[in-house]
Order: sequence, then structure tokens, then C-alpha cells
Amino acid sequence: MRVSVVGATGYSGVELLRLLLAHPEIELSKVVSHSSSGQRLSGVFPHLSGIIDDVLDGVNAEQLAEHSDLIFTATPAGVSHQLVPQWMEMGVPVIDLSGDFRLKDSGLYKTWYKKETAEEKWLQQAVYGLTEWYREAVAKAKWLSNPGCYPTCTLLGLAPLIEGGWIDPRSIVVDAKSGVSGAGRSVGLGTHFSEVNENLKAYKVGVHQHIPEIEQVLAEKLGEHVPITFTTHLIPITRGMMCTIVAQVVKQNASSESLHEAFRQFYEGEPFVRVRPLGRYPATKEVMGSNYCDIGMLFDDRTGRVTVVSVIDNLGKGAAGQAVQNMNVMMGWDERLGLMDTPLYP
Amino acid sequence: MRVSVVGATGYSGVELLRLLLAHPEIELSKVVSHSSSGQRLSGVFPHLSGIIDDVLDGVNAEQLAEHSDLIFTATPAGVSHQLVPQWMEMGVPVIDLSGDFRLKDSGLYKTWYKKETAEEKWLQQAVYGLTEWYREAVAKAKWLSNPGCYPTCTLLGLAPLIEGGWIDPRSIVVDAKSGVSGAGRSVGLGTHFSEVNENLKAYKVGVHQHIPEIEQVLAEKLGEHVPITFTTHLIPITRGMMCTIVAQVVKQNASSESLHEAFRQFYEGEPFVRVRPLGRYPATKEVMGSNYCDIGMLFDDRTGRVTVVSVIDNLGKGAAGQAVQNMNVMMGWDERLGLMDTPLYP
Amino acid sequence: MRVSVVGATGYSGVELLRLLLAHPEIELSKVVSHSSSGQRLSGVFPHLSGIIDDVLDGVNAEQLAEHSDLIFTATPAGVSHQLVPQWMEMGVPVIDLSGDFRLKDSGLYKTWYKKETAEEKWLQQAVYGLTEWYREAVAKAKWLSNPGCYPTCTLLGLAPLIEGGWIDPRSIVVDAKSGVSGAGRSVGLGTHFSEVNENLKAYKVGVHQHIPEIEQVLAEKLGEHVPITFTTHLIPITRGMMCTIVAQVVKQNASSESLHEAFRQFYEGEPFVRVRPLGRYPATKEVMGSNYCDIGMLFDDRTGRVTVVSVIDNLGKGAAGQAVQNMNVMMGWDERLGLMDTPLYP
Amino acid sequence: MRVSVVGATGYSGVELLRLLLAHPEIELSKVVSHSSSGQRLSGVFPHLSGIIDDVLDGVNAEQLAEHSDLIFTATPAGVSHQLVPQWMEMGVPVIDLSGDFRLKDSGLYKTWYKKETAEEKWLQQAVYGLTEWYREAVAKAKWLSNPGCYPTCTLLGLAPLIEGGWIDPRSIVVDAKSGVSGAGRSVGLGTHFSEVNENLKAYKVGVHQHIPEIEQVLAEKLGEHVPITFTTHLIPITRGMMCTIVAQVVKQNASSESLHEAFRQFYEGEPFVRVRPLGRYPATKEVMGSNYCDIGMLFDDRTGRVTVVSVIDNLGKGAAGQAVQNMNVMMGWDERLGLMDTPLYP
Repeated sequence: MRVSVVGATGYSGVELLRLLLAHPEIELSKVVSHSSSGQRLSGVFPHLSGIIDDVLDGVNAEQLAEHSDLIFTATPAGVSHQLVPQWMEMGVPVIDLSGDFRLKDSGLYKTWYKKETAEEKWLQQAVYGLTEWYREAVAKAKWLSNPGCYPTCTLLGLAPLIEGGWIDPRSIVVDAKSGVSGAGRSVGLGTHFSEVNENLKAYKVGVHQHIPEIEQVLAEKLGEHVPITFTTHLIPITRGMMCTIVAQVVKQNASSESLHEAFRQFYEGEPFVRVRPLGRYPATKEVMGSNYCDIGMLFDDRTGRVTVVSVIDNLGKGAAGQAVQNMNVMMGWDERLGLMDTPLYP
Repeated sequence: MRVSVVGATGYSGVELLRLLLAHPEIELSKVVSHSSSGQRLSGVFPHLSGIIDDVLDGVNAEQLAEHSDLIFTATPAGVSHQLVPQWMEMGVPVIDLSGDFRLKDSGLYKTWYKKETAEEKWLQQAVYGLTEWYREAVAKAKWLSNPGCYPTCTLLGLAPLIEGGWIDPRSIVVDAKSGVSGAGRSVGLGTHFSEVNENLKAYKVGVHQHIPEIEQVLAEKLGEHVPITFTTHLIPITRGMMCTIVAQVVKQNASSESLHEAFRQFYEGEPFVRVRPLGRYPATKEVMGSNYCDIGMLFDDRTGRVTVVSVIDNLGKGAAGQAVQNMNVMMGWDERLGLMDTPLYP
Repeated sequence: MRVSVVGATGYSGVELLRLLLAHPEIELSKVVSHSSSGQRLSGVFPHLSGIIDDVLDGVNAEQLAEHSDLIFTATPAGVSHQLVPQWMEMGVPVIDLSGDFRLKDSGLYKTWYKKETAEEKWLQQAVYGLTEWYREAVAKAKWLSNPGCYPTCTLLGLAPLIEGGWIDPRSIVVDAKSGVSGAGRSVGLGTHFSEVNENLKAYKVGVHQHIPEIEQVLAEKLGEHVPITFTTHLIPITRGMMCTIVAQVVKQNASSESLHEAFRQFYEGEPFVRVRPLGRYPATKEVMGSNYCDIGMLFDDRTGRVTVVSVIDNLGKGAAGQAVQNMNVMMGWDERLGLMDTPLYP
Repeated sequence: MRVSVVGATGYSGVELLRLLLAHPEIELSKVVSHSSSGQRLSGVFPHLSGIIDDVLDGVNAEQLAEHSDLIFTATPAGVSHQLVPQWMEMGVPVIDLSGDFRLKDSGLYKTWYKKETAEEKWLQQAVYGLTEWYREAVAKAKWLSNPGCYPTCTLLGLAPLIEGGWIDPRSIVVDAKSGVSGAGRSVGLGTHFSEVNENLKAYKVGVHQHIPEIEQVLAEKLGEHVPITFTTHLIPITRGMMCTIVAQVVKQNASSESLHEAFRQFYEGEPFVRVRPLGRYPATKEVMGSNYCDIGMLFDDRTGRVTVVSVIDNLGKGAAGQAVQNMNVMMGWDERLGLMDTPLYP
């Protein structure tokens, strides 16, 4: 199967290349970058020397459609909505890693992204690809909107609680922490080494564009819209994300054991979600370079609250890994194809 | 005034030395280390070469009392409670940076620290030195228990909300993040570079010994005991601490502006608490090497909750800095003496 | 083929596991750790949860021989020389990642390692496995001593210069820089996060045990012993090593172009050595998680010296990667089996 | 004395502010930034909140001359040579932290900086301010060119060897390593966090503009021009610089002891150069936030070479600290004024 990547010189794009190069069922067709078109890929990314020496293509929607059986778009916000509808019309499958097709309400997109996105007729056609919670829809999808890193990490931590009716959703407080690669490869003072290193920052407090994405999923699952508190922090690591989730438990006789068992059962058989033994909490490095989401939890009977710690590699399960997982599901392949690398530790 | 430091080869101890060396009103008398007794201080800490070349003394309570007008103890948990009562009996003022004298209930200490501490008659005599909230008591204190780093960072973020009756204390959720120097200078796998670097961990979830310390202060201020949710994380930086505090606002007509004004007024004239302008949040590096606590906040009218971001240098305001500040207040000196260094940035 | 790993809970050992788990021609037999015998591997290394849940075996030489067609020893200095001779006598192939079998002169070992090693009859039987420079010997080897990280990085940078007679070997000055994982997983103040982070140290200046290893290879290739200057530094990264090599060029009419061409030709067809285009120098991250050694160089006509910059992942080509490469060569398999992962970037 | 700072929003500039704020003999007059003119300083640098809330001035040479008894210029290369000659004509003392006045040969500047600088009549009037080696000239200077960070670190490591005739200057090989703040506050991919963190790079190999600066000083001291090998590396720390210097010893009967004694004597009484005991080598963190240069060395009798390890804080002794030290010497004040802070450790 011929697969193309648009936006290959961003961090999600180059991680996609790494995964696709090792995928047994596909061949890379076009590797596209708007900013570096015409340059040799190994010039932009010397780590790819001798592995893939292609010249980067510019964006040409028709040519891409012609040479691709599936297209990944890993472009900045505000770009893919200009490209994908053409491919929808042509019938070319797309997996979009940007935020453009995640919110089904284009007004909501405008409010939180401060930009325009596609018309809603297109938005509706894109399936939201949080694989573990939407696998059936993903399996039937032709156009897929890959979830954001924060929503993935948060929703996988919440899913067993929501599905099991364990918590009052109005009480959800999420403290989210991301490595700097999540901010992309575009330079700025906020990602300048000397400003970020040995530093810890809160950013976009109360206004992060992943908030409505999480709430949209919760609303769909709960049948009502519930606002959450979600605070984002920048941590001086390159890869890795942790969401620390707190919520009030409403089930009678809850205990750490019963909650843990609920998580264990919910994720039984899932190849990419690992529930830690009770009393153990995952660290981000334990999933680095992989598609895993690792989860630990505690019920605190002093407060009646549950604390869930959920970690992913923001470029793995938070972006390129989940995109490849979704491709596997869409194609009816073994979901694990190309994704079974052991995390790189230490 | 002759001042001695016990536990000088820990990180709080060596930070105390740095501050005391620059303090205009004191002279260093004894510099004591149990583990490195007999070694030259500049051998243990080469950064002190040519600055202070004393040989480290062993612990000799009587000799220390004789040569000191005030003693700082910066020892691990479970040590100072064996020393300080002797000095209390001799009438020598002490500022204890360990946890041994913070909890007034020795049973609570045993529950959370898994160790014994002093008898309660001694515990009662130690004033809890969160300077901004207990300045009058500090001014009269002879024996002072210096607050923990997490309680300092959290309680300074909560004080205006508690004093102003803004929030439901039962709703307090704190996500706390600390640099690794907070774990001290004793080696272990949990602070081994290759395990911590490029990694993000939650630890002591629900069982951190600073939880009862925070709740003790809140109980005293509120008149009732209220359990809080408090989750601690290890961040791969050396110095710096951030507490992200969320709570339900109960005041009518609250707004970011009114909350900000409450913080501004509460901390007006305080030399070491800086409230950021609305919409700005502090980063840990902005207080590095200083005694500042910087605070930003937001009222989210979607959820009715307030989010407070509070940062300190865990070795500064979180340990040695506040200890010196307390000494200044105890002595009736200008509270800022020896503490007006500009944070080291970048 | 059944392969066992002794010393699986060190960093080289756990990297070996990662590579062997993905290797198509072998199955893991015994996974052995002296220090963690009886523990579940995923308890020691949670990143292996759900991937390999074996209980760690203790060291039992006979049992290991029985269950293994090849044994990797990734033990601290001074251990494998006590184990390997038994397997030599039994005829079991071994690849030793420690320093015990690298120096053919046991007196030299004692001088530099301050320990004893095996008798010379055993030392002589172990082939030195710097694959690119000793491939023929490796192909015939049954007992292999895997090179140290520094010697690998240095000698691959020097080989084209030595073989081509470009430089005066008496003028070699190497400045070597290593990530902290090279110091292993044993804790100590020298690898304590707060001591290493944001810090840069020279260590073992003039006394590093890899010096005689490099000189032994050079002596063999040159026909005479030549001492080199080799200074080692600890860099606050987890993985990665760089050697900056300077030497006086003695060939007439040398130029950057002619030197570059010599490197290019020397490494033509090598799957794991990548020579950068002239004017480009490799960074350690460009080989992270891989078995590559990347090299750049410059001839400075102001001084008549060449500067070579050589980088590896100290746990990859510097340890586990090269060990697997050597296994592949020893077995007559495609040298690249299990080693073609793209470096993890960023 | 009224002192102004031009270029206050660069890292050297903001470090100058930190030092000048604590200096007992001066008052800050104008704080100037071309890029941030009109903004509040605490808006650009929140760590200065409550400390200095001035609005940044634009560059107005005449107004600056009028309000200043001494001007520091901490501007990028190619800026100060357009400003300083005016102040020279007006007779206003200047300490220039940029490279514009360091090379006395404007052709050399053009070759290495790829820019123009001032005419040579102005260049000649600026005294090169490597305090320890040029103290008498500094004491008489009115216009001072503050040395680069690499030249400071290298030349302080070489001075005792050169003055004592210990080494063959033609054999000097320097491996130089710098923290990222040395690259300034301007953003770019080369200082983007995710590209630098956990990475180690060589850069400007053979073409760094500090090479001719070092050679100019050596030429002046030796009476002949001698090219050196000098290779620069970027280390993922914010502050700190290390130069590892190797050279052939030519004195008979040299030993580590005799060399160490030579260093000790050369720097006896110097307040800011600390020679470590034999066998100990300095780490960058041991000088962080200070004006110290710490030095260790070894004579290797296997090779007949000396290895010197020299460290500074690149923003301290490598920039702002030495600039303040030079001001103190120029003014006839105690050289240590405002510079006696203990390094910030850990």
C-alpha cells in the first residue's frame, strides 16, 4: 500500500516516517513538506542519512492523490482543512493528525483555535480516532481525525471511570504536563533552550484548545456537556506527557482495589494500554518511543476522590503512533503492526 | 551574632551557608555535618573553595550551644528532635528546617513519617514559620519550625482564598511539582541521573508527609479539619517548585479581576511574594536562587473554579531562604537582610 | 537460537533485551541478574510490562550453558572473567560486554582497572569485536570481547587515518564526552541528578581504563606502542557519546576534500558508519537508539591538523548494538538483523 | 556613579543588571534595548518584577552620554562599533561586551565575523580586558573591550604555561564546551529546546570567531603568531563553560607537582581564579552565577603533555562578571565589589 506523509518535517511527521519505515505492509510514496520542499530529507534530518534520502516534495493535492492509497497529514493547525476536503471528494483515505477535524462544531474551533476550519459537512465525515474508545467507528472510517496528545492521555485515564459510572464528571480536575516536542519544531522564545531548560511553566491556563476536544468526547459519552478544569504545563523534557486526573467518586464502597480492577478489566486485551499494579505509578520514560499508554490509580478514602496518573509519549500514542494504530485498524490489519518496539529505556 | 548550621552538607544546609555568608548581621560559628565530620568543607563542596575553608565539626550539642547565639538544623527527618530539646532546655534559639517539629500531634508524625519525633511539650513550643501568615508569632518565637517546601508553596497560594472566604476548602486539589534537589543529597535509584533525566514521575501519591502539614495549617485557620487532594511529582530540574491549585469558588460574582485584586491586596507590602499581572503565570526559573514566591491565578467561569499557580525555589523560600527570613523577623531586623539577590536568570 | 543475557538489569543488559526482543533469529532463554534474582523483570523495569514478564534468574553457569546457544555477559568489571572461562571449556559461545577480556595483557588490566582478570590463555581466545576493523576475525570468533564505548567511538574515527597513513600517531589528542548512562545503573554521588544536571565535569583525567584499550588496537595496527592523550567528560544527557579527535596530518597535499574522500571510501558499504558531507558534523541525537556511528571531519590548513567528530549511542554501537552486530557476523547472518531501527529523533 | 546598560534584554545584559543592582558604588541610569524599547523590563523579564520596573529606553547615543558616567554595551556583533566611537569622541567611558573591539586588525574581524567593524584608530584605543593578564592596562583604560567567553576560559588556563615557558605553543589543542546561553537570546533551530536537549553538538568547527582573539593575545605574549586548534561544542546546559586544553610540555623535569605549583603561584592573591588541589578538576556548576574561573591540571608523563581543565560561568567571568570586575579596576575600587556571591550550588 502506498502511503504519503504531508508535513514530514514537523516532529509528528518525522516520527511518522520512523514508524512507517518499519511497517511491514506499506511503502512510503510521497514525503511532503511545505517549508522544506526541494531539500533532501537527510539534509533536514541527518539522523535519516542512509535510511531515506528522498527529496521533499511540495504540496500538490492531485499528484498526492494519484500516488497514494492513504495520506497522513501532520500539518500545523489551519492547514489540513484546506487540503483534506479535496481528497474526500476524490475518495482518498486520510488520517489527519492536526486539530482541524477534531471538533465537530466549527464555531467551537474558531473560539478555541482563533482560526477557521472546514465546513461541518466535512467535519462530520472524519471519525475521531481514539482507538480504544472508538475502535468500531475507526474500523469503518475512511477519513480519520487523530486525537490530540492531551485528549488521548486524559481520555484513556478517564474512560473506565466514565464507562463504569464511578465519578461525578463535574468534579474532574486534570493537571497536564507535556514535553517540549509537543510545541512543535517552529522556533520561538517559549521553546528557546535557555528559557525552557531547568524551568517549569504553566501555559494557556484555561484556554488550551484541547479542552473542548476532551469535553466533546465526554459529552458524547455522558449525554451532556460538562466543563472540566484542565491546566497545561511545559516540562523540560523532549518527549513525554503525563496527565494527573482527580475526580470525586460517587460509587458506594469504592476502594483502590475495586477501582484498579475496573481499569484492569476495561483494558484487558488492549495491546497498548498497560495498567500498573496497585501502588505503582507510571513514569513518562517507561513509554518513550512507543505507542503505550500506561496508567496507575489510587482511591483516597480521606477525600473520596480518585487520582489517576496516565502517561504517553506525546509523539507516539499522542500523535504518530496512534495514527499508525488507526491505519492498522482501518485496514483490518493486526493493530500492532509496526508498533511493537520496546520503549527506549533509559 | 554567632550562628551555627547543623546538617551543612545537605542541600538546604549548603544553601543556608550561601545565604549566611552574605548576611550582614551574623557570623558563622560552627558548621556541622554528621556524615562528613573532619573533612574540609571545600573538599565536600568545591564551589566553596577560597570562600569558606573550615573543617566540618561533628555533632556536639553542648559545644554548639556554647558557641552559638542561634542554631539552624537542616538535618534529615528523625534527627533534630533528638537535638533540639536539649537546646530548648538551655535556652538557645533554634530554627529547625526538618519536619520534626512541624506537626503538633506526634501521632500524626508517626503515621506519615513512619518514625518517632519529640514529645508534644517540645512540639508545642516550636512556632510554625510560614512568615507571611504567622509573622506575629514568628516575631516572638525562640524555637521555630521552618515549613516544608510544598506547604510553603501551597499555603501562600491558598492564603488569600482562605482568609477571604473565597473557596470551598473541601474542593481543594493541588498538583505539586518539585525539582530533584528537594529529594536531598542522599543517593538512590530514584534520584539517579539516568532514571530521572528526561522523565516525569508521580511519587508518594496520597501519602506524602507534607499533606498533614498543610491540613494542620488549614484546620487552624478554618477551625475544622478538611482533607485535601495533593499529588506530588518529580520534575527533571535541580531547583524549583510549582503548585497548581484548583478549588471551587463560593463567593457570588467572583471574577478573575476580583480574585486578582484580593491576592494583590493580601500580599501588598510583602517583600517576598509577587503577584503577577492578570493573565500572566510565573515560571520556576523566575525565582531561582531567591526567596520569592510568585503567584498567578485565573477564575474560570465555565467551571466556577479558581486555578492558582504558585512557584518557589524549593531551597530558597522552600527551605533556607525562609529560614533566614524567619531569623530576621525573630531578631527584629529588616526582614529582607541577606535575601535581596535578584533571581539567577536564565 | 537460544540466547541468554547475564547482567540484564544494568543499562547495557536492558538495551540488549530491547534489541534481542526484536531480533528475528533468536529466542531469549535465560535472563539473569545477580542483584535482582527472583524479581519479576517488569518490576525492576516497568517499561517492559506486558512485553517480557520473566522472573530474573540467578547466576548458575552450568544451567546457563545448558539452556543457551550463546551467552551475552553485560556485567560490571571484574565479574565475567570468573564466569566465561567455564563456558570456554564447555564450548559455549560468549559475547562479553565488560572490560574483562579486552586487554590481552592481564598486568595492564590490573594497572588500569585496579582488579584482577582472567589468565592470559583465556584472554587470548577472545576476539576483539570492533566489527568494522576486525570483521574477519569476528566472523570466526567463538568468544568475543565487545569493545568499550570510548574505544569504539575513537577507533572508528581514527581507522581511516591510521590505515591511510594520514597522521602522526604520536600527535593524537582525543576529547571524549559521554552521557551518564555510560556510568551504569549503580548509584553514587557522581551520578546523583542534582550533582550532574546542568553541570559539566572532566573525570578520570589521564587514568581512564579505556586508554590502554585504544592504545592496544593502535599498537597492533601500527606495529608500535604509541601513547595518546585521552580526556573523558561527563555530559548531562542520558545516552550519547562524542569523541573529538585531533591529530597532525603528515601526508603532503592533504585537504579536507581528500581526507573526506578517504573516510568515504574506507566506510563505503558499511551499514552502520555514516560519513557526513563535508562541512557537516554529527550530533549525538542523530544516532540515539541506533547502532550507527556518524562521523564528520575537517582539515585545518592553518595548523596542518585534522579534526574528526565521531558520535555513537554509548548503549547502542558503544555496547549492546555492537554486541548484536557481532553476533550477526559470528552467525553468518545479515549483519543488520535486528539493528535497522531509525534513530529516535527528536 | 551613573551607569547605563545598552542591550539589556540579551543574556549578558540581564546578567549585568543583576550584578549592577547589587553593586554598592553605582546607580543604574539608562537601561536600553533596541528590540524591546518602550516595554517594561519586568514584562520582558518577570524575574525582575518588583526589583526594577523601568521602561526600556531606545538607543539614543547623546542622551545616554548625558546620563551616564560609564556605559556597558552588551549588543550583538556588528552593533557597538556604530555607537562606541561617538562616546569615545565625547569622552564617555565604555565597556563593550561584544566582539567589535576585540580584534585590533579590522581585516581579521571581517574574515572571521563576516561583517565590518570600527576603524582601527578606534580599535586601538580599546584595552583588552582579560583582567588577570592585563590588569595594569585595564586600570588605565577608559574604553575597554571585554573578552569573549571562550578566550577568557582558554587564556586563563594557558597564562601560567605561556608566562612560564612550559609548553610548545604550536602544540596547543583546545576542546571548548559551552552552555546554550552563550548563543544568546535570539531564537533559531540551533537553540530550539527539542533540538538541543539530550544532544551534544560540535559547531563552527575551525571557524569560530574566538579563535583569532585567542591567537592575538598569544601572539602578543609570545612575540609571534601561532595558530591553535580550537573546537567548540554546544552542551545542553544553560550556563557554564569548560575548556580542556592540551599542550606539549617542553621544560625538563616537568611533573604534575611542578606544574601545579606554577599555577598556584601565578594565581596567588587573585580573587577570582581558584586552582584546585592536584588530582581534582573543576566542574562548571562550581562557578555557576559567580565570577570565578576554576582550574585543574595534570602532567601526563606517558605523553609529555599537560592537560588543563578550566571552567567559568559564560555569563559571569565570561561576560558580565568580568565586565564589572573591569569597571572596578578602572575605577580604582576593590576589584571584588559586587562580585563576591557564592556560586549557586546545586
